[in-house]
Amino acid sequence: MSEVYAGRRTRLRECCNAGGSAAALVSRPANVRYLAGAAPEGAVLLLGRTEDLLVCVGPPDDRSPQSRPDEALRVHIVPALGSGGGSGSDAAVAAAGLAVTQGADSLALEEHHLTVTRHHAIRDTAPRLRLTGIGCAVEQLRVVKDEEEISCLRIGAEIADQALGELLESILVGRTERHLALELERRLVDHGADGPAFPTSVATGPHAGRPGHRPTDRRVEEGDFLSVCLGATYRGYRCEIGRTFVIGTAPADWQIELYDLVFSAQRAGRESLVPGAACRDVDRAARQVLDSAGYAEALPELTGHGVGLEIDEDPQLTPAAMGKLDACVPVTVEPGVHLPGRGGVRIDDTLVVRPEADGGPELLTITTKELLAL
Amino acid sequence: MSEVYAGRRTRLRECCNAGGSAAALVSRPANVRYLAGAAPEGAVLLLGRTEDLLVCVGPPDDRSPQSRPDEALRVHIVPALGSGGGSGSDAAVAAAGLAVTQGADSLALEEHHLTVTRHHAIRDTAPRLRLTGIGCAVEQLRVVKDEEEISCLRIGAEIADQALGELLESILVGRTERHLALELERRLVDHGADGPAFPTSVATGPHAGRPGHRPTDRRVEEGDFLSVCLGATYRGYRCEIGRTFVIGTAPADWQIELYDLVFSAQRAGRESLVPGAACRDVDRAARQVLDSAGYAEALPELTGHGVGLEIDEDPQLTPAAMGKLDACVPVTVEPGVHLPGRGGVRIDDTLVVRPEADGGPELLTITTKELLAL
Repeated sequence: MSEVYAGRRTRLRECCNAGGSAAALVSRPANVRYLAGAAPEGAVLLLGRTEDLLVCVGPPDDRSPQSRPDEALRVHIVPALGSGGGSGSDAAVAAAGLAVTQGADSLALEEHHLTVTRHHAIRDTAPRLRLTGIGCAVEQLRVVKDEEEISCLRIGAEIADQALGELLESILVGRTERHLALELERRLVDHGADGPAFPTSVATGPHAGRPGHRPTDRRVEEGDFLSVCLGATYRGYRCEIGRTFVIGTAPADWQIELYDLVFSAQRAGRESLVPGAACRDVDRAARQVLDSAGYAEALPELTGHGVGLEIDEDPQLTPAAMGKLDACVPVTVEPGVHLPGRGGVRIDDTLVVRPEADGGPELLTITTKELLAL
Repeated sequence: MSEVYAGRRTRLRECCNAGGSAAALVSRPANVRYLAGAAPEGAVLLLGRTEDLLVCVGPPDDRSPQSRPDEALRVHIVPALGSGGGSGSDAAVAAAGLAVTQGADSLALEEHHLTVTRHHAIRDTAPRLRLTGIGCAVEQLRVVKDEEEISCLRIGAEIADQALGELLESILVGRTERHLALELERRLVDHGADGPAFPTSVATGPHAGRPGHRPTDRRVEEGDFLSVCLGATYRGYRCEIGRTFVIGTAPADWQIELYDLVFSAQRAGRESLVPGAACRDVDRAARQVLDSAGYAEALPELTGHGVGLEIDEDPQLTPAAMGKLDACVPVTVEPGVHLPGRGGVRIDDTLVVRPEADGGPELLTITTKELLAL
C-alpha cells in the first residue's frame, strides 16, 4: 500500500507546485487518511520540501490495525497539552514550524478546514512563511477511486445488504424505529463493519421516505410504509443503501403507485450513470420522472452524491451541479418522495460509474428493489 | 425555558459590548444550542444590534422534540445549496449580511470554530464590517451549570448506571469487547438516552485501563481485568462513568493492589472537589497517590474534565491547568493506570462541585466502586 499513498502525495505535490507552493499542510482528517493511510486524532500531514511528515499529538493510536500510518512516512510527535475548551491540538502549528526548518518559504493550507485561530497561530509561529490555500485539491484527488478503494466499498455494501436482509426476516410490527436502527447497527458490526457509515435511519408510517429521518419511538404498524437507510464503514470506506417496504399482507393502491414511480425515477438515475455524463443530467433523469407526475414540491435537493472515506463527497447530483462523471466514481442514486402526514418512498443504491464496455454502472448494494410486503 | 436562553444571550451580549462589538456570530454547534435551545445542522446564531436571529440552512429539523429552537427567537432560513465537497453551508455568510442590515459596524466571531474560507467569505460579503473575535466567551458561560442542566446530567447518569448494572448481571466470559460495547449502547437508548455520549469503551485483559480504548474482537477471559467507560446523552447533556471489574471467582493479588491504589487516587480527587479549589490541585490530589506508588510513567495527561453539552469541556484537571472550580460545575474524576501487556484499572465518575454546606460534591454516577469479581 505504501506506493499507493506515495503516489497520491506525488499527485498533490504536483498540484501545489503548479500553484507556486513548495510545501502543503493537510489537516482535514479524511484527507490525511487518504494520503497517509491513517489519521490519528489531531494529526496533520506535512508535504514538506525535503520530507513528508505525519505530525501527531501524542503517539499515534495503535489500536486500530485497519488504519496504520504508511510505514514510509516519518511520524513526528508533538506532546499533547491538556488545553481543552475547543482550542484543540497544535499539530498544525508544529507542522508549520517544521516546514520552515525544511527551508520552505510558502505553505499551502486547507483553508476550508483550518480555523481562523489556528491560521493566526501558524502565522505567529512562522511569520516569514507565505500562507496560501490549496482549496479542495485533496477532495478532488479522492473523487476517482482505485480498485482497492472500490473493493472496500464493495465489501461494505455486502455487509449492509446482509444486515438489512436479516432484519427483513424478523418480526417488525410493534417494534420502534430506534430499536430497529440499533439492531441494524449491531448487525453491521457483527458482519465485520468498522461501524455504521452514518446514523442509521428507520422511518415508519408518516415518517417513511423522509431523507435523513432520525429514529423515534414510533412503532411499526400494519399498513405502514417502512423506509430504512443504512451503510457500513469498511476500512474507512462508507457506502449507503436505502429501501422502502410495506408492512402487512398487501400494499394499498396509492402505495404501489408511489413506489413504482420512485422506482422508475431511481432506475432512470442509475441508467444515466455513464462516464462523461453531466452530474446535473443524472439528477434530471431521476427528477423529471417525479416532476412530471406532479411531485416537484416534494423533492429533496439532491438525487445522489459521491461516497468514499466520507459519506457525502463530490460529485453532488443536483440541478445546479457542475462537472461530469468519470469512470470509477462511486455515487448514490437516492430519489424519494415524502407526502406530509402520509409517508413516502425512498430507494437508494451505491453504484460505481463504469464504461458501457465494462457492463455499465456496477451496482454495489444488491438487496432487491421489488416492493416487499413484510 | 425561553427566559433561560434570553438570559444567556444577554450575558454574552454584555461580554461582546465590553469587547467593543455590537453584534456577534455564534457558529459552534454546542454554543448555538446553549444560546438558542437547538442547533439545526449548519445553523448559526446572530446576536444582532436590533434583534437576535437563528440563521438556518433550510427549515429547522422538526424531528427532535427535545431540541426545539427558543420560540422567542426569530428563525431566518437560508436556502440550501447542494454545494458539497466540504464547502458546507453559508448560514454564517448570510448572518453577516443580516448584521449589516441591522446597522452593525463590527461583528465578533468564534475564530476557534470558523474556517479561514468562511471568514474570507464573510469579509467579501460585508467588506465594511470590522471582524473581531469573541474567543471562548460562550464556552466560559457554559462552565457553570444551572439546576435544569444539572438535572439533565443527573438523569443521564442514572441511565448509564442502569445500562452498566444490567450488563453486570449477564454472562460476560467469551463475549467480545465490540459486542459488549454495542449492548451497552443499546441499553442506554432503551432507558431513554438520546444516544451514547461518546463511543463506549470496553477493554479486556491487556487492554483494560487504557483511556479511550476502542473495542476490538478480543473476548473476555477468566482472570481478566474488564474496564468499561460509557455515558448517556440526555436532552443534549453528556455524562460519563467508568468502572473496572475482575472476571472470575477471585482477583489476583496484583489486581487487588492496583485496584485499591487507583481507588484511593480517585477518592482523593473526588474529595478535593470544593468550590474555590484550583483545578491543578484536584489533579495533583489524585496524581500524587499514583505517583508515590511509582506509576508516574503510566499516568494519562488528565485526571478529569468538565462535561455538559459536549463530553469534554472546561475545566480541564491537569497539572498545567489554570483557574479554580466554582460551585455547580460538573466534572469527571477519572484516574487510571495501564501496565503495557498486563492491563490496568480506571475508575471514572461524574460529579457536581457543591459547597461543603450543601453536602460537598454531588456524585451523579452511583454504581458501586467495590472491586467486583464477575
